[in-house]
Amino acid sequence: MLDKKIADQFAATFGERFTTSPAVLELHGRDESSYPSVPPQGVIFARSTQEVAEIVQACAVTKTPIVPFGVGTSLEGHTNALKGGICIDLSQMDQVLEVNQEDMDCRVQAGVKRVELNEHLRDTGLFFPVDPGANATIGGMTATRASGTNAVRYGTMRENVLGLTVVTADGQIVRTGGRAFKSSAGYDLTRLFVGSEGTLGVITEIQLKLSGQPEAVSAAVCAFPSVEDAANTAIQVKQMGIPVARMELVDAQTIDALNRFEGMQMEVKDHLFFEFVGTENGVAEQAELAGQIAEENGGTGFQWASKPEDRTALWRARHNVYYAQLKLRPGCRSITTDVCVPISQLATCIELVKKDIQTNDLLAPMVGHVGDGNFHALFLIDPDDEAERECAQQVASRMVEHAIGVGGTCTGEHGVGRGKMKYLAQEFGPEAVAVMKQVKRALDPDGIMNPGKVIEMN
Amino acid sequence: MLDKKIADQFAATFGERFTTSPAVLELHGRDESSYPSVPPQGVIFARSTQEVAEIVQACAVTKTPIVPFGVGTSLEGHTNALKGGICIDLSQMDQVLEVNQEDMDCRVQAGVKRVELNEHLRDTGLFFPVDPGANATIGGMTATRASGTNAVRYGTMRENVLGLTVVTADGQIVRTGGRAFKSSAGYDLTRLFVGSEGTLGVITEIQLKLSGQPEAVSAAVCAFPSVEDAANTAIQVKQMGIPVARMELVDAQTIDALNRFEGMQMEVKDHLFFEFVGTENGVAEQAELAGQIAEENGGTGFQWASKPEDRTALWRARHNVYYAQLKLRPGCRSITTDVCVPISQLATCIELVKKDIQTNDLLAPMVGHVGDGNFHALFLIDPDDEAERECAQQVASRMVEHAIGVGGTCTGEHGVGRGKMKYLAQEFGPEAVAVMKQVKRALDPDGIMNPGKVIEMN
Repeated sequence: MLDKKIADQFAATFGERFTTSPAVLELHGRDESSYPSVPPQGVIFARSTQEVAEIVQACAVTKTPIVPFGVGTSLEGHTNALKGGICIDLSQMDQVLEVNQEDMDCRVQAGVKRVELNEHLRDTGLFFPVDPGANATIGGMTATRASGTNAVRYGTMRENVLGLTVVTADGQIVRTGGRAFKSSAGYDLTRLFVGSEGTLGVITEIQLKLSGQPEAVSAAVCAFPSVEDAANTAIQVKQMGIPVARMELVDAQTIDALNRFEGMQMEVKDHLFFEFVGTENGVAEQAELAGQIAEENGGTGFQWASKPEDRTALWRARHNVYYAQLKLRPGCRSITTDVCVPISQLATCIELVKKDIQTNDLLAPMVGHVGDGNFHALFLIDPDDEAERECAQQVASRMVEHAIGVGGTCTGEHGVGRGKMKYLAQEFGPEAVAVMKQVKRALDPDGIMNPGKVIEMN
Repeated sequence: MLDKKIADQFAATFGERFTTSPAVLELHGRDESSYPSVPPQGVIFARSTQEVAEIVQACAVTKTPIVPFGVGTSLEGHTNALKGGICIDLSQMDQVLEVNQEDMDCRVQAGVKRVELNEHLRDTGLFFPVDPGANATIGGMTATRASGTNAVRYGTMRENVLGLTVVTADGQIVRTGGRAFKSSAGYDLTRLFVGSEGTLGVITEIQLKLSGQPEAVSAAVCAFPSVEDAANTAIQVKQMGIPVARMELVDAQTIDALNRFEGMQMEVKDHLFFEFVGTENGVAEQAELAGQIAEENGGTGFQWASKPEDRTALWRARHNVYYAQLKLRPGCRSITTDVCVPISQLATCIELVKKDIQTNDLLAPMVGHVGDGNFHALFLIDPDDEAERECAQQVASRMVEHAIGVGGTCTGEHGVGRGKMKYLAQEFGPEAVAVMKQVKRALDPDGIMNPGKVIEMN
């Protein structure tokens, strides 16, 4: 139970925006992962940075844990309130505060969602490129260092956040970064908070870099005899310096799902989906070069779509991959995992995982942001079959260990959350984890910020 | 004087690679800034990470300050040994440890210089794009978060460092990051050490992202009636999404210097220098579009050079700007400063500074990485005229304050060092500086790592 004094204080300050209704608590204790809900003891719908600071100040006094919440689309149990406490729901902080067209930047509150941001930007000639599968909040995307299909060209949240407003564990409002596109001024606190998953502070505002809408866009798809051929194509495309905007691996199983549930009609083979952006001629040239490389690697049926409706259909299908994959096994739950490896290791890594999946008789379609060496497996499991869940988790665990073994990372874009804390020492060594702990202890000495995530503290 | 015990220990371990020779100390206590040398008490030429760890461990016991040193090309007094102690010279750690062609990355020791790295990479089809004016070491560039003319397209050290080996204040060897191009795994220690200027640890190895050498390259120059017209051209080129590789403002005074000392023959006006990379057609198209935009903004004499020798001459001149500018006033010393502002503020900002320079009867040519909003002023002062130095410093100070006032940063690429510590609170607010201090105290509780730089500690 929540401390009565703090509950009374929040009720007096926030009225109906503070709630302990079981249904609301239940909803706020979960995300899109397979972890069951671990509800907080209270939820506050904050409307300003100042309000967040007041909440954190009150929690700091009573050492009450704090879990920030956007729209709950994270995938590693980030919003499970493992030690109870207060969930700060930021979804009502949904204002785009400024758009600076000439400077190609904007400032948003943490609760702005990426699709809504791009709708807001539509008439400016600019867009925000980072596009994880879900319509996540910019705050959540910042906190998990998210990326998506555009990262190969435009980078991840790491590269696209210019500055932040963060409420730290002592309730201070800290501004990091600024509006300059580069800076050598002091420690890079912006990048320290990007990807800190709420464990170092609550991100309330974000200054974002925007990109210019390209003059011309085209898309292409191509089928390959094997994942290896597709991966080799991706490597060569990158080495040739072809500035692809997107280069996505979609495995045969996922193609099957897209055919069945998204109205696509593609050969059931491993595919690459490309997007090229630039000038009219530049785009044509890029597509031609990529097509040649694909062909040299056994690619067939290279189709080039420059009509907006064809492109839209293709990328809509790609973005709905998750939901189409889920339909491959009605009633299933999913365990989603992602790793990222040096691109030369990608094909071997995927083949190994596929073999492991087959050997264990699991269903787990895969997609990959192949230009970055990042790929996802979606284990479709029977929620009532504990043995199957355990088996899937073991395969996922071997996938992570293999990725780390070849110089990769335990997560390319989903974050650490609860499930991947154990891999950090393996990936970076105990010395680096010790430094992370020093930082955590310095910024959150009482361990109230999203406890039980990222770093194991005692 | 250095503690005798530690001096004996270093002499025994490092032999001639440990020195207290006054000439060597003098050289290691200075950089290319106008700060006079502040020599350390001893210099050790380290040859491995392990050796650096041993040095730091010994210094940690006796709380002896440590100043890392590459080739001394920094510009803010970074290598002044303000509290004496040991300078660790990393220039003998000059090995390229690995190049992974398929993965487009490499690992180098901290003492590798950027020109030598690119020579090493010449036959791989890859290159390392970050190019500050000097032939700095990769370690020094990492420590100061350096950039250069290519940043508008390829980013700064922030975006091009994948991982690090760092020796922290307790003598631990810490590995951060990895070889994956993106990661959401844990706190971004890599970015924390990039730009920390030796105050959080000694960087000994760097994993770098490489870029593919483009198929085609072309360059162009164009004269403008005013800095404003040039800046507006740059803004529009960026907004059009033209992926310029370089877009440099060179002011009329600097053009004059290039004409006189670098054999160039250009109209003495403010100029933009462009570089375009991509495919043959793509490059032609980019140049044509940029030329149109320049013309609409009053640009004249737009010349397009695709011949390698013409391009090389142009960019050699650009890279020699610093030395040409110095020759405008024989016997002078320079005070160099750089700021970075939102690009919409660039023209006003430069005009204000120019007026201030004129009003105060100073000579200070300017160049700018205009695509990033970053510009430099080089104050050419009489080393014996204290009043002139003071006056130049005041103008430089007003330049910084103006930049901060319009949302910019006190340094785009030179770093904080000694001289710009006072601006951090102004730029980020005291709360952010307090967080930086928490981090510094957590990682370096005894304050032995490059004391007196970046953050004012008591």
